Amino acid sequence: MIENLLQQLPLDTSREHFEPLINASNMRIERIVTPPNSPLNQAWYDQTEDEWVMVLEGYGVLVFDDGRIVTLKAGDWLNIPAHSQHRVIKTDPEHTTIWLAVFYQA
Amino acid sequence: MIENLLQQLPLDTSREHFEPLINASNMRIERIVTPPNSPLNQAWYDQTEDEWVMVLEGYGVLVFDDGRIVTLKAGDWLNIPAHSQHRVIKTDPEHTTIWLAVFYQA
Repeated sequence: MIENLLQQLPLDTSREHFEPLINASNMRIERIVTPPNSPLNQAWYDQTEDEWVMVLEGYGVLVFDDGRIVTLKAGDWLNIPAHSQHRVIKTDPEHTTIWLAVFYQA
Repeated sequence: MIENLLQQLPLDTSREHFEPLINASNMRIERIVTPPNSPLNQAWYDQTEDEWVMVLEGYGVLVFDDGRIVTLKAGDWLNIPAHSQHRVIKTDPEHTTIWLAVFYQA
């Protein structure tokens, strides 16, 4: 079984989608699909796991609780340690942004 | 620190490169860069960990010990259970193939 992360996008473009790909005991892999102009989660993410995240298509802008602002475009990756609070403040307004996230215990 | 998986490719295009991105206790993430026409590993991979793998650019053809042949092109992903023996028999002869692999305990 092969699937393609850039295709088979959810039909509902009114909201962000979090799609589990792998659920193992110590890590999980998710595709996150953010349609243009879909409402972004206003709450800060405060996660118990480390997150390795990359953008496959489009772009996203993250803000961290220390004021740091980071733009991820296609191919960019970032490691977000557990409890490094952050949220997404903007994504590509023209295209769907596709993220790949790996959550794990450090 | 951001890095881009599609850029900053190794200068040595005579061989395949395996580059660790994350090394955690229970999982690791690697970028694999296969230049066009670089020699492919002839031995079968027989791994103790599960491997989730996707192609970011180019394409690759894998063969499994049960005879199955699978082509992965950009965006395609596959989960390879531990001890599912496989090898890469072809990659894109025109462009560098860039893979992302996550090795983990199932």
